[in-house]
Amino acid sequence: MKAFMDKDFLLETETAGKLFHEYAEVTPILDYHCHINPREIAEDRKFDNITQVWLGGDHYKWRQMRSNGVDEKYITGDATDREKFQKWAETLEKAIGNPLYHWSHLELQRYFGYHGALNGKTAEEVWNLCNEALQKDDMSVRNIIRRSGVTLICTTDDPVDTLEWHEKIAEDDSFEVQVLPAWRPDKAMNAEKSDYADYIGKLSEASGVQIRTFADLIQALQARMEYFAARGCSVSDHALEYVMYEPASDEEIEQIFQKALAGEISRTEELQFKTRFMTEMGKAYHAKNWVMQLHYGAKRDNNQLIYRKLGPDTGVDCINNYAPSAQLADFLNALAEPDTLPKTIIYSLNPNDNAAIGTILGCFQNADTVGKVQQGSAWWFNDHKQGMTEQMVSLANLGLLGNFLGMLTDSRSFLSYTRHEYFRRILCNLIGGWVENGEYPNDEEALGRLIRGISYGNAVRYFGFSLDADAVLRK
Amino acid sequence: MKAFMDKDFLLETETAGKLFHEYAEVTPILDYHCHINPREIAEDRKFDNITQVWLGGDHYKWRQMRSNGVDEKYITGDATDREKFQKWAETLEKAIGNPLYHWSHLELQRYFGYHGALNGKTAEEVWNLCNEALQKDDMSVRNIIRRSGVTLICTTDDPVDTLEWHEKIAEDDSFEVQVLPAWRPDKAMNAEKSDYADYIGKLSEASGVQIRTFADLIQALQARMEYFAARGCSVSDHALEYVMYEPASDEEIEQIFQKALAGEISRTEELQFKTRFMTEMGKAYHAKNWVMQLHYGAKRDNNQLIYRKLGPDTGVDCINNYAPSAQLADFLNALAEPDTLPKTIIYSLNPNDNAAIGTILGCFQNADTVGKVQQGSAWWFNDHKQGMTEQMVSLANLGLLGNFLGMLTDSRSFLSYTRHEYFRRILCNLIGGWVENGEYPNDEEALGRLIRGISYGNAVRYFGFSLDADAVLRK
Amino acid sequence: MKAFMDKDFLLETETAGKLFHEYAEVTPILDYHCHINPREIAEDRKFDNITQVWLGGDHYKWRQMRSNGVDEKYITGDATDREKFQKWAETLEKAIGNPLYHWSHLELQRYFGYHGALNGKTAEEVWNLCNEALQKDDMSVRNIIRRSGVTLICTTDDPVDTLEWHEKIAEDDSFEVQVLPAWRPDKAMNAEKSDYADYIGKLSEASGVQIRTFADLIQALQARMEYFAARGCSVSDHALEYVMYEPASDEEIEQIFQKALAGEISRTEELQFKTRFMTEMGKAYHAKNWVMQLHYGAKRDNNQLIYRKLGPDTGVDCINNYAPSAQLADFLNALAEPDTLPKTIIYSLNPNDNAAIGTILGCFQNADTVGKVQQGSAWWFNDHKQGMTEQMVSLANLGLLGNFLGMLTDSRSFLSYTRHEYFRRILCNLIGGWVENGEYPNDEEALGRLIRGISYGNAVRYFGFSLDADAVLRK
Repeated sequence: MKAFMDKDFLLETETAGKLFHEYAEVTPILDYHCHINPREIAEDRKFDNITQVWLGGDHYKWRQMRSNGVDEKYITGDATDREKFQKWAETLEKAIGNPLYHWSHLELQRYFGYHGALNGKTAEEVWNLCNEALQKDDMSVRNIIRRSGVTLICTTDDPVDTLEWHEKIAEDDSFEVQVLPAWRPDKAMNAEKSDYADYIGKLSEASGVQIRTFADLIQALQARMEYFAARGCSVSDHALEYVMYEPASDEEIEQIFQKALAGEISRTEELQFKTRFMTEMGKAYHAKNWVMQLHYGAKRDNNQLIYRKLGPDTGVDCINNYAPSAQLADFLNALAEPDTLPKTIIYSLNPNDNAAIGTILGCFQNADTVGKVQQGSAWWFNDHKQGMTEQMVSLANLGLLGNFLGMLTDSRSFLSYTRHEYFRRILCNLIGGWVENGEYPNDEEALGRLIRGISYGNAVRYFGFSLDADAVLRK
Repeated sequence: MKAFMDKDFLLETETAGKLFHEYAEVTPILDYHCHINPREIAEDRKFDNITQVWLGGDHYKWRQMRSNGVDEKYITGDATDREKFQKWAETLEKAIGNPLYHWSHLELQRYFGYHGALNGKTAEEVWNLCNEALQKDDMSVRNIIRRSGVTLICTTDDPVDTLEWHEKIAEDDSFEVQVLPAWRPDKAMNAEKSDYADYIGKLSEASGVQIRTFADLIQALQARMEYFAARGCSVSDHALEYVMYEPASDEEIEQIFQKALAGEISRTEELQFKTRFMTEMGKAYHAKNWVMQLHYGAKRDNNQLIYRKLGPDTGVDCINNYAPSAQLADFLNALAEPDTLPKTIIYSLNPNDNAAIGTILGCFQNADTVGKVQQGSAWWFNDHKQGMTEQMVSLANLGLLGNFLGMLTDSRSFLSYTRHEYFRRILCNLIGGWVENGEYPNDEEALGRLIRGISYGNAVRYFGFSLDADAVLRK
Repeated sequence: MKAFMDKDFLLETETAGKLFHEYAEVTPILDYHCHINPREIAEDRKFDNITQVWLGGDHYKWRQMRSNGVDEKYITGDATDREKFQKWAETLEKAIGNPLYHWSHLELQRYFGYHGALNGKTAEEVWNLCNEALQKDDMSVRNIIRRSGVTLICTTDDPVDTLEWHEKIAEDDSFEVQVLPAWRPDKAMNAEKSDYADYIGKLSEASGVQIRTFADLIQALQARMEYFAARGCSVSDHALEYVMYEPASDEEIEQIFQKALAGEISRTEELQFKTRFMTEMGKAYHAKNWVMQLHYGAKRDNNQLIYRKLGPDTGVDCINNYAPSAQLADFLNALAEPDTLPKTIIYSLNPNDNAAIGTILGCFQNADTVGKVQQGSAWWFNDHKQGMTEQMVSLANLGLLGNFLGMLTDSRSFLSYTRHEYFRRILCNLIGGWVENGEYPNDEEALGRLIRGISYGNAVRYFGFSLDADAVLRK
C-alpha cells in the first residue's frame, strides 16, 4: 500500500515517477487562463485565515457543503470563519474520490507543510497551523505565485475594463511574473440579456466609438482589442451555451442588433446574432494572431432560489448536454473556408464531447501553427483524475498528444497552482504506464521532451509569449 | 490467477478484502426498490424447479437466449422446464463479461451451494441439485429473504392497488421483515394512452373522488397517497421517457385533461400535461416528506412482433438517448424555487447521463436532508461491474460518495439479493483501490463508516425507516 | 518494464499470452469489410516505396501531419516521396498513444522485419530497408495477402460497378484467396445530391431497367443484386448520417422521387425517402439472406478549403453526435414486425452510442441466426485500444460477447491486416484479464473456442461463406 499522498502520489510506475520528478516537477508554470483578481496581485494581498482563502468564493466547495446538508449560514452566511471551516472539514471526509479532496490536501502540503488528513477532528489543528502561516510574508499573493514557479498569468477581462491593475503590475519592477489581460467579450455577444443596451452604452464610452449598428459594435470591439493588445493581450475567451451555426445576411444581423437594443429578440435571432458575432471575432483574432478559446456546455444559475440570493458563480450550474458537433464543425469551417480561422482551443463541459471534439480538431489543422486547433484540458467539473485522463487518452487516440497545451487553473484562488502539479502527476502516470507496458519506446530524451512540452513549452510556443520554452526551475 | 468467483471475488487488493469481509458483508440489506410480488411473500411461496425461479419472468435472460439463436419455444414457449434450463445453460457459457454470468453463479453459490460453472455439460447436475434444494423449507420465499439478511423491502404499486397483501404481511407476526408499498402513479400520468379514461375511472372508484377535472385528479391521488401512507409508504417512483419541462397555465392543463379523457392529445400537450403532473406530485411528496424517484431513458416495447405476443417487460426495451439535461434542471428548479422540492433520486438508463446528473444534483442540495438530491445506483442495463463503477466514480468526482444510498435490486426475483453482494464487492474494490494507491487515508474507522453507510445506513437515515442504521448481521 | 512492442505486446497476463499465442495467432483472417482496390489484386501490384504504400491515400496519416503543422506540400503536394516520409516520421514521434503509432510499427515488424522505433532520426534507415523489401516478390499485393493468412476479402462496390476485376481474380486459379464484392448503394439513396439524376441514369444503363419511378429504382437495384450475387456477394453496406425513421406513403415516396430527379427535395422529404429506401433494401436483403451493414455517425468534408482541393476521404471528416436511438429502434422494428429483418451489423462513429446500440441488439434477436443483430467492431476513429476495448466490454455487458463477429480492416491499404493482430491482442488481453481475476472459469477449451470464434469462426458461420470455420494456420 502506498502512503497517503506522498511524493509519488498518483505515480504508479517507476517510469511515471522518473518522468514526474526529473522533468515535470522542475518545469515552470504558465497559467494561461484563470479568474484571479489582478488588483490582489498589484496590492500583494495577504489573507487573515484559511476560510478566507478557501471558502470566500469557491463555489466548488459550497456545492459539497450543501450536499452534506450544511445550512447556508455556514457556507455563505454569517457564521464565523472558524465555524465554516469546521463544516468544510466535516464535509471533506465524505468526499472520497473527489478532486477537492486531493486539491485541498495538496495545498495543505505545499503551502502549509501539513501532511495529515483534514477532517472534523483535525480541523482545529489545521486551522491554527494555516492561519499562522498566512501571517508570514511568504504567503502574500506575490510570494505564493513566485513559490509556485509561475512565469506568466492570463486573467479574464471584459472589453470595458480599464486594465489599470495590469498596468500597475507591469510598471512595478519588483514583480518579475508577467500578468496579462485576456479578452472575454461575452457581454457584447449576449444580445438576449435585458441589460444589453446598457452594456453597449458602456462599450461606446470605453471605446470612443458611438455604437449605433452592428458594424459599429465590431469597430468598437476592435478599438478595445487594440487597447488590450497594447497591454500584452493575445488570448480571448468565450462562454457559449454551445457552438452554434445559424448564418444570416448582413441586413438581418443589423435588424437583429436593433431589436436587441430594444430588448426584443427571438431565440432564432439570438442564435443568428451570436453566430455572426463569433465569426467576426474569429476573423479579428486571426488578423491579430490571437488565440480563440471556446468554452461551452454549461447551463448556469439553475437554482433560482440561490441565484436570487447569491448571484452568479455560486455553485448552481450544471452540464448542458445539447451541443451538436455538426454546428461546431460548420462554425469552424465558416472561418477556415476563407482562411481566417485563428488558433483555437475548444473546451466542452460535457465529457461525452471528447471524441467529437477530437475528430473535429483534425479537420481544421494546417501549417499556420503546430497544433493550431486544440482541445483544452478537462474543464471545471471534469478537472479530476478521470476527467483529465480521459481527455488526454482521447486526444492521444485521435490526434497528437505531443502537441497538447496542457493545464490551466481556471481558478479564483492563489493556492490553485497545485492543480498544475496534480495534472502533471496524472500526465506522467499515463505516459509512464504506456512506456512500462511496451506501448511506446523507453526513450528518455523523447519522453522528457514530451512531458516538458505538455507541461510548459508547447504553450509558450503556441501563444508566442516572451518566455523561454525550455526553462527549468532551480530546485 | 485468482480462483473462479471465490470468497475474494472482485476484491483485488488487501484493503478491498478487509472492507468487504469486515464491514460490507456483515451489514443487512435494505431493498428500497423492487418488483417482487407481495402475495408470494404473504403466501410464503415455494418453487418447483430452478426454471420457474430463473426463467419464469426474467427478461434479462430471455434476451440473451434470443441472442444465442434459441427458438422462442425454449424461452417463453411450451418446451419443458428442463429443456429451457438446458438452453439457458448453453447460452450462459457465451455470456463472458455479462452480469448474468456473475449473478447466476452468485445465486448458485449462496442459495444452492454450487461452486462450479454452469454450462451445457453441467446443466443436468445443477438442475438436480437446485430442484432438490428448492423442496426444502429454507427455500421458501420468506426464508430466502431471511437468509439474505433483508430488513425491509419496498415493492412497486399502482395507486388503485388495494395493498391487501401488504396488510396481510403486516398483520402476520411470524414474519419480521418490513414489506412496504411504493407509490408508482405512471398510469395516472400517461394521458396519451388509449386506455387513459378507463384508468381514471378506476382511480375515481378507488379514491372515492369523482374525477372530472385535473384538480380532481390531484385530489384523488392525494386521497390514495393517504391510503398508501397509512400502510407505511414513503417512497414514490416514476417512469419517464425523459424528465421534461414544458410549463403551461392552469387553464391549458384543464383543457388538455379533457382532451386526454377524450383520447386526443398532441405530443406538445402530452409533455405539458406530464410536466404539470410531475410538478404537482413533487409538491405533494415534499409536503409528506416522501422520496421522489425519477427513472428515465428507456424506450419500451420496440419489437412489436414480440410485444404483441408476450406483452410488456419481455426483453424488447432499449436505451433512449434523448434526455436534455436543461429540462431536468428546469423541472427541479420549478420545485426548488418555491422551496417544494422533495428528497429526489434520479436514475437514467443512459450511462452517458452520469456526468450531467452528477452536476445537477449539486445545484439543488440544501439543509433539509443530508444528500437530499441523489443519483440512484446504476440501473437495469447498467447494473454491471463497469456500470456500477462508473456511476460511483462519477458521483465521487462530482459530489459526496460518502452520502450515496447504494444498491437496490429492482428485481422480480427472490434470489436477487446477491446483487447487493455484487454491488458491495465492487464498492469495496473501488474504495480499497483508492486507499492502496494513496488517494485516501488508510483510516479504518472512517472507511468502515463509509462502507456501512453506503451499504445500508445512509438509506435508513435518508428514507427515515424504523430501522437501526448501524445494525450488524450476526454471522 | 515490458520491451517495446515485443511478442507479448498488449498481453498483460499469462492467460492473455496463452490465448493469443495458442489460439488467436494461429487463426486465419476473414476481412469482411475493406476498401482495397480489386484491380491491384488482379494485377498483383508491387509498390515502389513505403511512401506510396503508407501515404498515398491514408487520410488517417494526413490528419496527423496537418496536426503537426506540416505544410500540405509534404502531405498531398509535390514534395518528393522521401521528403514526405521524413515529415511523417517526425510526426509519428508525437503520436504517443495513437493507434497509428502501433499500426505503423506492427507493419514495420511483420512485413519489413524492423523492430526499432520510427522517428526523424531513424527515417533514413527505415526508408531504405522498406524500399528494398518492397522490391521483392513476397511483397506483391497477393503475397502480402497470403503471408497475412487471409482466406477471404470483401471489397466495397457500387451497384453500377461491372465487377470485372472480381471476375478476373475468380477466374485465376493461381490465387486461392476469395475476393468477393460487397454491395454499397449509397448513391442510389442520396436523393438530395445534385448529381442524383445522373447516377440514376447510370443505374438504368447498368441494370437494363429504365428507371422512371421509385418502384423502377427498386427493381433496377434488385437486378443488380442478382448480378452481384452471381459473383459471390452476400454483404451490403450503407453509410448513413444517422439511422432515421420517417415513414411516408407509397404515393409520397413516388412524388419525392420525382422531385429528387428534378433536384429539389426538402430535408423532410430526404429523410422520408431514405427511410423507405433503407426499408426496401432491408427486405431485399432478408429475402436473399444477405447481411445489412449500417454505418452512421459521420459528418464528412467539413473543411471546404481542403475538400475543394482534394475531394472526399482526405481527412476532414468528424463525428456527428446526432443519432436518436429511438429512430434506430423504430427502423429495425419496421423490418422486424413483418418478419423481414435481415442479419444486421450496426456501427456508429460515436463511441457514446455503444450502450444504446447494445440494448437495441437484444430487442431484435431471434432464432434465424446465432447473433442475428450485431454491433460491428469499433469503427474508424474508434479503432484503437480504448475504442475496441470499450466496444467489447459494452457488448459483453449487454449481450453475448461469445457471438461477436470480430475485426475488419475497413482499410485502403494491403498492410492493414496487422490490425487484426492488434484487435486479437486486445481481445485476448481483455478475456485473459477476466479469467485471471476470477471472473470466468479458467476452462481452456471454452476460452479457446471463444477466442477462435471471435477471431474467425463466428464470421464464417454468420455470413455463410464457403470456408472452414475451424481452420488453423500452419505456422
